[in-house]
Amino acid sequence: MKRKFVVAIEEMVVQEFELFAENGEEAMEKAEKKYWLGEFVLEPGNVSFRQMAIMKPDNEFTEWVEF
Amino acid sequence: MKRKFVVAIEEMVVQEFELFAENGEEAMEKAEKKYWLGEFVLEPGNVSFRQMAIMKPDNEFTEWVEF
Repeated sequence: MKRKFVVAIEEMVVQEFELFAENGEEAMEKAEKKYWLGEFVLEPGNVSFRQMAIMKPDNEFTEWVEF
Repeated sequence: MKRKFVVAIEEMVVQEFELFAENGEEAMEKAEKKYWLGEFVLEPGNVSFRQMAIMKPDNEFTEWVEF
């Protein structure tokens, strides 16, 4: 008999951005600011890693499985 | 003097999907198939975790920093 399952899928998306700064600390501060301002926006396509886990029903809970 | 930095930003995107299956194994097989067929597509907005690291110049390499 089929039952309803809820499966969570996670994707790790990664992207590189260039900026000019005096040093590494300033570079990270600037990158964070640009991220929150929407100047640095990750494209959804660059998936470096994906995994899934069953969330429901509770008795079927699994560990995260990479795929 | 300002230098050019390359900062990598990673986002973990997560989303839950429902499906019907006989058991957990079948649920995960179906979820993976639906993912690759483009039936299960994650919205870019559901970011559960984000981090950054400096990639270049090489002498500025840092660990990943959550933000």
